[in-house]
Amino acid sequence: MVERIRDFGSDNHAGVHREVMAALHRVNVGHVHSYGDDPYTDEAVARFREVLGPEVEVFFAFNGTGANVTALAALTQFYDAVICADTAHLHNDECGAPERVAGVKLLTVPAPDGKITPEGVTAQISERGDEHEVRPSVVSITQSSELGTVYSPDEIRALADCAHARGLRLHVDGARIANAAVSLGLELGQITGDCGVDVLSFGGTKNGLMLGEAVVFFNPELAQHYRYARKQGMQLASKMRFVAAQFTTLLTDDLWRRNAGHANAMAQALAERVRRIPGVEVVYEVQANAVFARLPLKVIPVLQQEIFFYPWDAKKGEVRWMTSFDTESADVEEFAALIEKTMAERNAW
Amino acid sequence: MVERIRDFGSDNHAGVHREVMAALHRVNVGHVHSYGDDPYTDEAVARFREVLGPEVEVFFAFNGTGANVTALAALTQFYDAVICADTAHLHNDECGAPERVAGVKLLTVPAPDGKITPEGVTAQISERGDEHEVRPSVVSITQSSELGTVYSPDEIRALADCAHARGLRLHVDGARIANAAVSLGLELGQITGDCGVDVLSFGGTKNGLMLGEAVVFFNPELAQHYRYARKQGMQLASKMRFVAAQFTTLLTDDLWRRNAGHANAMAQALAERVRRIPGVEVVYEVQANAVFARLPLKVIPVLQQEIFFYPWDAKKGEVRWMTSFDTESADVEEFAALIEKTMAERNAW
Amino acid sequence: MVERIRDFGSDNHAGVHREVMAALHRVNVGHVHSYGDDPYTDEAVARFREVLGPEVEVFFAFNGTGANVTALAALTQFYDAVICADTAHLHNDECGAPERVAGVKLLTVPAPDGKITPEGVTAQISERGDEHEVRPSVVSITQSSELGTVYSPDEIRALADCAHARGLRLHVDGARIANAAVSLGLELGQITGDCGVDVLSFGGTKNGLMLGEAVVFFNPELAQHYRYARKQGMQLASKMRFVAAQFTTLLTDDLWRRNAGHANAMAQALAERVRRIPGVEVVYEVQANAVFARLPLKVIPVLQQEIFFYPWDAKKGEVRWMTSFDTESADVEEFAALIEKTMAERNAW
Amino acid sequence: MVERIRDFGSDNHAGVHREVMAALHRVNVGHVHSYGDDPYTDEAVARFREVLGPEVEVFFAFNGTGANVTALAALTQFYDAVICADTAHLHNDECGAPERVAGVKLLTVPAPDGKITPEGVTAQISERGDEHEVRPSVVSITQSSELGTVYSPDEIRALADCAHARGLRLHVDGARIANAAVSLGLELGQITGDCGVDVLSFGGTKNGLMLGEAVVFFNPELAQHYRYARKQGMQLASKMRFVAAQFTTLLTDDLWRRNAGHANAMAQALAERVRRIPGVEVVYEVQANAVFARLPLKVIPVLQQEIFFYPWDAKKGEVRWMTSFDTESADVEEFAALIEKTMAERNAW
Repeated sequence: MVERIRDFGSDNHAGVHREVMAALHRVNVGHVHSYGDDPYTDEAVARFREVLGPEVEVFFAFNGTGANVTALAALTQFYDAVICADTAHLHNDECGAPERVAGVKLLTVPAPDGKITPEGVTAQISERGDEHEVRPSVVSITQSSELGTVYSPDEIRALADCAHARGLRLHVDGARIANAAVSLGLELGQITGDCGVDVLSFGGTKNGLMLGEAVVFFNPELAQHYRYARKQGMQLASKMRFVAAQFTTLLTDDLWRRNAGHANAMAQALAERVRRIPGVEVVYEVQANAVFARLPLKVIPVLQQEIFFYPWDAKKGEVRWMTSFDTESADVEEFAALIEKTMAERNAW
Repeated sequence: MVERIRDFGSDNHAGVHREVMAALHRVNVGHVHSYGDDPYTDEAVARFREVLGPEVEVFFAFNGTGANVTALAALTQFYDAVICADTAHLHNDECGAPERVAGVKLLTVPAPDGKITPEGVTAQISERGDEHEVRPSVVSITQSSELGTVYSPDEIRALADCAHARGLRLHVDGARIANAAVSLGLELGQITGDCGVDVLSFGGTKNGLMLGEAVVFFNPELAQHYRYARKQGMQLASKMRFVAAQFTTLLTDDLWRRNAGHANAMAQALAERVRRIPGVEVVYEVQANAVFARLPLKVIPVLQQEIFFYPWDAKKGEVRWMTSFDTESADVEEFAALIEKTMAERNAW
Repeated sequence: MVERIRDFGSDNHAGVHREVMAALHRVNVGHVHSYGDDPYTDEAVARFREVLGPEVEVFFAFNGTGANVTALAALTQFYDAVICADTAHLHNDECGAPERVAGVKLLTVPAPDGKITPEGVTAQISERGDEHEVRPSVVSITQSSELGTVYSPDEIRALADCAHARGLRLHVDGARIANAAVSLGLELGQITGDCGVDVLSFGGTKNGLMLGEAVVFFNPELAQHYRYARKQGMQLASKMRFVAAQFTTLLTDDLWRRNAGHANAMAQALAERVRRIPGVEVVYEVQANAVFARLPLKVIPVLQQEIFFYPWDAKKGEVRWMTSFDTESADVEEFAALIEKTMAERNAW
Repeated sequence: MVERIRDFGSDNHAGVHREVMAALHRVNVGHVHSYGDDPYTDEAVARFREVLGPEVEVFFAFNGTGANVTALAALTQFYDAVICADTAHLHNDECGAPERVAGVKLLTVPAPDGKITPEGVTAQISERGDEHEVRPSVVSITQSSELGTVYSPDEIRALADCAHARGLRLHVDGARIANAAVSLGLELGQITGDCGVDVLSFGGTKNGLMLGEAVVFFNPELAQHYRYARKQGMQLASKMRFVAAQFTTLLTDDLWRRNAGHANAMAQALAERVRRIPGVEVVYEVQANAVFARLPLKVIPVLQQEIFFYPWDAKKGEVRWMTSFDTESADVEEFAALIEKTMAERNAW
């Protein structure tokens, strides 16, 4: 019934890391209070405070859409806007949840490599500032970005400074924050709170959890409305211990780093291997666990029949190959060999 | 770190049934597509169709709030209202999610025993019907109700007929639908689709799952907009197999019936036992897994110090005791004995 | 083309007072800035400050729905609720605008005579106060009420104290605030700011204007978000001078008092007259410009064929008769005579 | 108290045309039903049907924001998007009302001259079409555009065909539709219904009315939900006759054409005159009643001190000069002379 092998479709095609499965068993004992008023949730929050600082406020949500949108709801007034990349998941892949549920308007900034700059942000902040316009109040970036690129600490700091100077907050959609930290060789705090990030959606699902994201407020005052945003945003798990415990494990023995590091290494291996295949072009810098490549249009469906992956820009022949914590070197080699063989055969078409 | 014993606070204080834990392991193999396009989700949907009829459309959501609100969003226009009991979870415990996320207004009907009637529904349907008013388009009932009572098939059928005659749909918040079916000695379909229910939120979390609810459309046409409602309502799990597989197990070997039957039996045992304690009054009929009792106000906190439960109506001295799939007879006896002893001591106060 | 005579359907069936028409001409000179940045709007605001206190903040909106809903939007967070009478226009006649546009949930209090009490308000303020519930943050009353009754200053003060003690604000839907002030023989400030009212929707349309309502903040800090709420709520007139100037006139030479006083007197006259007709019962105290009466069911359509008015509770045979600034004594007499004659004829039916 | 002369700030800085004032008097007679159930509203609708076709459904709203947003609300499901120009008023000047009140996401298309093309629209219609994305369901264009340019009938027809071929509707924000029709030398129907426009916001305020916009559905089926959208969107005037009657007058004796024609002619005159001034560049084609010009940055505030107008793009030195139905030739000459003189003096700075 299962797929024959691991594919390169998405890091959420993978299952659950065995240490995370063990955590689910560990906490499946007796009764505890629901909705997070339990010792396992306290334990997970404490672990986050060890990693990101003693003052952070941490809440758990079901999925990335939920974490991002409830975080933005908690940070904004009814007439506020969020500035983000035109490539942002928030803008393209949430079926309007930011607008409908958080009630914010998104103002997009061109981001050819998936990253926005202070200049782009500033261009979206009007000088009028009257009631005819929405009021930008949050800048949201994705780390690592939707194009597999990574913001450096300096880039994040510059965006935080730009935002703060104008009274805005900096939010990070960190569905793949671990991949970014590993890529930079830095600790999680060094690319978030230390750089002026105000609120972080800390991704778990794509890094080996069954499900779960954490919303981290580096300034506790900003968390004032969050409990209500999470409940209204339908992200409050009743049996919270089973979400929280996964994060405790993710932050134990560097599991987050091991998983993300492995996924990143597999992406590097794949990129290196396919760069040597004539006619295949890697189109963005490979900094996390994604490889974007350009291929002849006709080759794509031939490959997809064997091993699944997603097209990215069908017209340009761009595709996306994602690796995950459980991708194996043999998977990479098998896939690369398939590409190589298919490209070679193509010359005879 | 865990609580000493099982409490009577809520059926969501319990953990996960071991068969459900086994299901999570069963499906944790290799890569599958995300968002429900996977064989395990197909398997769960097929199981639902065996149980509720071949034509049902089934979708999985994270929690009860999410299932209810996204179901209502999918059924309504922007100017629609939902008629429900004034005791409904939808009205009292969702932090305004029906209004904010589904965008519906709730019109409440008095429900002294947790259940509404066609007369109550009819009274909320105005004869004006102009644009100054919202348009009632859905009746939503809770089965078993928030007060532990159960709608009979005749009662459901009457509500469905009343709704349909006026062009409304009947939705059931079935967070505890299994407890109701067991209480009535009926199959799940006999108290839902067979009675004219249009859409059912089928509860899993309170009946032994880790998390997960299913939204079941008995008329496939009504499901037309649901996928968008679920995504926008932030209820779409990426690693869907881990939600779906829990339901497959719940619907296998009658686990739903075993779990709910056990919880119901424990509530009956508790009710019988405490009815014999002078000064304790059981206030609603005990038909599912809840016992509501009236106690002297001073006794309540004394009991709560030992074994946790929730007050229901603090002024009236009403409390709620919930049993769950893992409540043991010894728990009931220990709790009843504590109540008995505390009530006796109270005479000396 | 016009109706034969004035009817008793609504005070918004009347046209525009001639002094108000004159005001429209007065300001129709040359160009001024739009959206309220003009001398005529300044003039109207100054007039309001003379009447209601130098510190009030005043904004103009198109209609009553708009004034009420934008005021509530400006006062509330995304998880807030507004407590109001179950008879409130806000709850029954706005097609869900409070929920959809202001994003608030309404918690209703029974109001048999159209008025709510501190006890009713308190009963809607939960002691739980957790994120599962909406947070009541505003109490909204209608003055004069939908049933033609009037809150006394003591009653308003008690509601304000009750609200403020729990951190809530008091809003008054004053679509007929002038009728209430006249009824009580008091100045406008004596039944609003002086009693602790925080925000007032000051009605103009029903008191002789062409259209226009004013939103008055007695505490300027509460006005902080209002400009955005008005614009987003689509209540910002571009040629604002033509709304503002109507209010200047309404507050000049006591036009508000003359108009409301006349309407109230006509209602009193009608009530006195019909009380003497056997079989006609006046059902609420007549304190403003509405008379609610109970009539034999069969008589109602016979009367309506001659002179229009609205049924109120069709089943009970309750009808509503509204008077307005332009109702004439002859209209009252003609209507009363019609009722008398029809009632008499009915004995032969 | 009034401004010294007419300015070039906006066509909504003008007052009310005297024929429109007369209309307000004409209908200020006796009582009529409220909310549009009156003979004057019927008369206005009949006039619209004479002009735009017998099958159109017509509704009146207070302002342009209200007309546009309620029209979009009526046309869309909860997961729908509206495609519009990045210069659209809808996107830049409504304080998020489309997103918050209509609940739609806007997808913007670059429009260097204020106009969008089928290619731009097509690029915003994704091929994925799954629930992760919003569903584009309406294309909205502004005629004449925010940059004073005008869509030709062929351009509108091409957009309508493009939209309809993909199941979308074409909405026109016609705040200045009269200026466009006059500019093209065509009747109103020839640039709307005849070209496949589905819904039109027909502007009145900027063409000599006191206030009022009409929402016109060329396909009556599309109007199904509109009454509810208007009420919930707080655009339903109680004394509707005073809005409707203005439109009757606007559509009588070609007042719409006289007013718009005059404004357009004044813009042409201004453009011709300033084109002859060295250092002043007219930056878009002048097709309606707006002239956009580029001036030395230092000159702008000097001019504004004398005669008001708005900057458009402060960094580029672009300004906007609007003419209106009451702009006089002497105003144009005075303004042009001021520009000429100031530009000349500037050489000595």
